Amino acid sequence: MSISLDSKLSFDLVFSHPLLATEPNSETAPMVLAGVLLTLVFVYLASKLGGELSKLVDLPPVLGELVAGVLVGVSALHLLVFPETGAVASDSVVITILEKIAGLTPENMGEVFNTSSEVISILAELGVIILLFEIGLESDLRELQKVGSRAAIVAVVGVVAPFIAGTVGLILIFGMATIPAVFAGAALTATSIGITSKVLSELGQLKSTEGQIIVGAAVIDDVLGIIVLAVVASLAKTGDVDIANLVYLIISATAFLFGSIFLGKFFNKSFVAIAEKLQTRGKLVIPALIFAFSMAFLANVIHLEAILGAFAAGLVLDETDKRKELDQQVIPIADILVPIFFVSVGARVDLSVLNPTIADNRQGLVIAGFLILVAIIGKVITGWSIFGQEKINRLAIGIGMIPRGEVGLVFAGIGAASGVLDKPLQAAIIIMVILTTFVAPPLLRFAFQEEELQLEKPDLAIDG
Amino acid sequence: MSISLDSKLSFDLVFSHPLLATEPNSETAPMVLAGVLLTLVFVYLASKLGGELSKLVDLPPVLGELVAGVLVGVSALHLLVFPETGAVASDSVVITILEKIAGLTPENMGEVFNTSSEVISILAELGVIILLFEIGLESDLRELQKVGSRAAIVAVVGVVAPFIAGTVGLILIFGMATIPAVFAGAALTATSIGITSKVLSELGQLKSTEGQIIVGAAVIDDVLGIIVLAVVASLAKTGDVDIANLVYLIISATAFLFGSIFLGKFFNKSFVAIAEKLQTRGKLVIPALIFAFSMAFLANVIHLEAILGAFAAGLVLDETDKRKELDQQVIPIADILVPIFFVSVGARVDLSVLNPTIADNRQGLVIAGFLILVAIIGKVITGWSIFGQEKINRLAIGIGMIPRGEVGLVFAGIGAASGVLDKPLQAAIIIMVILTTFVAPPLLRFAFQEEELQLEKPDLAIDG
Repeated sequence: MSISLDSKLSFDLVFSHPLLATEPNSETAPMVLAGVLLTLVFVYLASKLGGELSKLVDLPPVLGELVAGVLVGVSALHLLVFPETGAVASDSVVITILEKIAGLTPENMGEVFNTSSEVISILAELGVIILLFEIGLESDLRELQKVGSRAAIVAVVGVVAPFIAGTVGLILIFGMATIPAVFAGAALTATSIGITSKVLSELGQLKSTEGQIIVGAAVIDDVLGIIVLAVVASLAKTGDVDIANLVYLIISATAFLFGSIFLGKFFNKSFVAIAEKLQTRGKLVIPALIFAFSMAFLANVIHLEAILGAFAAGLVLDETDKRKELDQQVIPIADILVPIFFVSVGARVDLSVLNPTIADNRQGLVIAGFLILVAIIGKVITGWSIFGQEKINRLAIGIGMIPRGEVGLVFAGIGAASGVLDKPLQAAIIIMVILTTFVAPPLLRFAFQEEELQLEKPDLAIDG
Repeated sequence: MSISLDSKLSFDLVFSHPLLATEPNSETAPMVLAGVLLTLVFVYLASKLGGELSKLVDLPPVLGELVAGVLVGVSALHLLVFPETGAVASDSVVITILEKIAGLTPENMGEVFNTSSEVISILAELGVIILLFEIGLESDLRELQKVGSRAAIVAVVGVVAPFIAGTVGLILIFGMATIPAVFAGAALTATSIGITSKVLSELGQLKSTEGQIIVGAAVIDDVLGIIVLAVVASLAKTGDVDIANLVYLIISATAFLFGSIFLGKFFNKSFVAIAEKLQTRGKLVIPALIFAFSMAFLANVIHLEAILGAFAAGLVLDETDKRKELDQQVIPIADILVPIFFVSVGARVDLSVLNPTIADNRQGLVIAGFLILVAIIGKVITGWSIFGQEKINRLAIGIGMIPRGEVGLVFAGIGAASGVLDKPLQAAIIIMVILTTFVAPPLLRFAFQEEELQLEKPDLAIDG
């Protein structure tokens, strides 16, 4: 017996992965790598299946990736589950496979699950950072500045209208207390810049005036959202607003955005000069990522979001002669990282909130109906808030602002953590986030298609 | 006071990153992302500085990346340190920066350090997996089969010669006990396929007969190394060899390698058929990565190395019409991941073993001198073990097998963990690994240059 035990020990010792051999947890390290590899295989399979099927029925592929994410996630197949949604190691199919075929021991399951989940989470975050960097590269700073004031109006109306309508409606119609109503109202203000910009890119509308207004407004909305969240979270926590914090946030956000644009005018020349001097592999993409990750880090530490920094970096580098070449090289990097983000967003969605056999959910579904109405109308009207008589696809702009996506999930998460949201309201917010996220891509497709049809008709008349 | 405490709490709550807002450790999650981003910035800066300087003095860039890794690692700047080399959070400059400017609390430092280090380790491993996938894509299965028997001889001689010379020498000259001598002898058998193939690729020699023999031999050496390691570790642990384990290893390794080649003849057509049907972004690179990661996972779970699976996947896909297009797309992905691997290998090297003021090191340096001699001669002679009279650069082949790299570090790590190596011998092995790793790239450059000069001379004579 002791021999077999010993040989088992030496076996574990022997097959520790090279790089991590002397690590304290050297027994689990190769399992973490195995877990990450298997998870990535599932994530990629899901993203391709979902994306291709979505494309086949003429919908934006990202919608398919989100749906496939739901399918592999906590709601169904459990191929991709995260500790923060309450899953434990034995809930994960990947961990179960490792236990069955790779000799993962029950004692190490928890550690391998947590670590590999954390790695996938960070890869997903790097994915959305690269996505926003790419969107920045494909956007045009001059065009964005041209639509700046219109984007700002769209963003402000898209924050104020659903916030007021949602909060007041919850208080008056549902007799809700002020603080939870304010929190739910705040959750209605979000716009997912990731989902919106990806759909625009897939529809080939990113560079259109409408596309640039939507992206600009989504960026501003993201900043406003961070400020709104700071206010309501502080309100929920202390019953008071932390003014100093608020002022700090507003100043740092403004300084960051304008600082990047200003920097852009000077830095892009130095960037090209440096890139042209380099001779080894990655001579363009590595300096670009150094810049993008530095900006993302900076945005992160001044309490903005990392993606805003990456977007700003993309905008700056878009102004250089190297843009096209860089864009070409960023595409495969985005192709392998971005799907991890969208599939993860889908995987975190817990559809059990839709189960009407649970009392809290029934109540939640009623509130959700109201929130969804406000969420859609409150954003769609933003298209008509733009001044001027110019011919513009107002419906598309309004629809582009609808998806709450991962930003909306934050509000729900923080609300749940702070204890101000009861179960039904929490479920209602999550349902609203899910529905607005999934309904926006096909609606946006439709809105831009309508425009094409209208543009084509006069041509036909002339031809006839 | 209580207000400021509360606002600090709500502040932490508010700025949890979106995706991870509901995670148990939601306070540390945005700090982990910040830590990973800042580390990547340092890694990329180091890799570019090192690579470019190396190129300027006409040496392979990968040598510069390794040296730059040493500079930013545990031996000098502490920008990139790992828990498994004994570092704690406060040793890490990145963690210190986060504490100073990003509000990381002392209680969370350890967790953020461990998690972000783990993420960087996995990114490094994905880097070497992508590197070997790329090397597989650039290799030619037919060419490899043609050189197969010669590669096998080079590998076997390169394992047997240094093992016997090292073990016997340590026993006879240094009066060492058998088990530590066997362990040190085993450490001499390794060849770093990563470093060798990267240098060959940088010298444009990957596709030459010599290059293919070296890569083939390094792959076989890697498999032999795993078997040798299993034997000596079992010997060190129990004083006996676990025959069942050994047989399992040999059978699974053989089955895997031949299985992949066999699979290659059938699978590549289906792969092209699938890739041609897909229409969404990443239609080529995602199926390729699904295949590569699946093979890497498979190799990992049957206790081979993940990189062998990735290499086999690359070889298989090299046989398809899509090879060129795929190669183009893998380049930027490799460009951003591979440097993380080489800089990490450098960063883990602890140069303090070279400090002669420590008694153990002085003794280690003497043994190291012997080990280095055996390590270099034992591999260089492999070039002359090839039968046949053909004109071949035997010196280059021998030198190509010299670098022990990350594979050598494993032996040292496992030896240290198992307790069979005393301090001086441990230091000696590490010094041997460092020296063979750093000396091989310039020597290989020189060996291929000599060849060019010899090839040029006759031409000159004819011209004259």
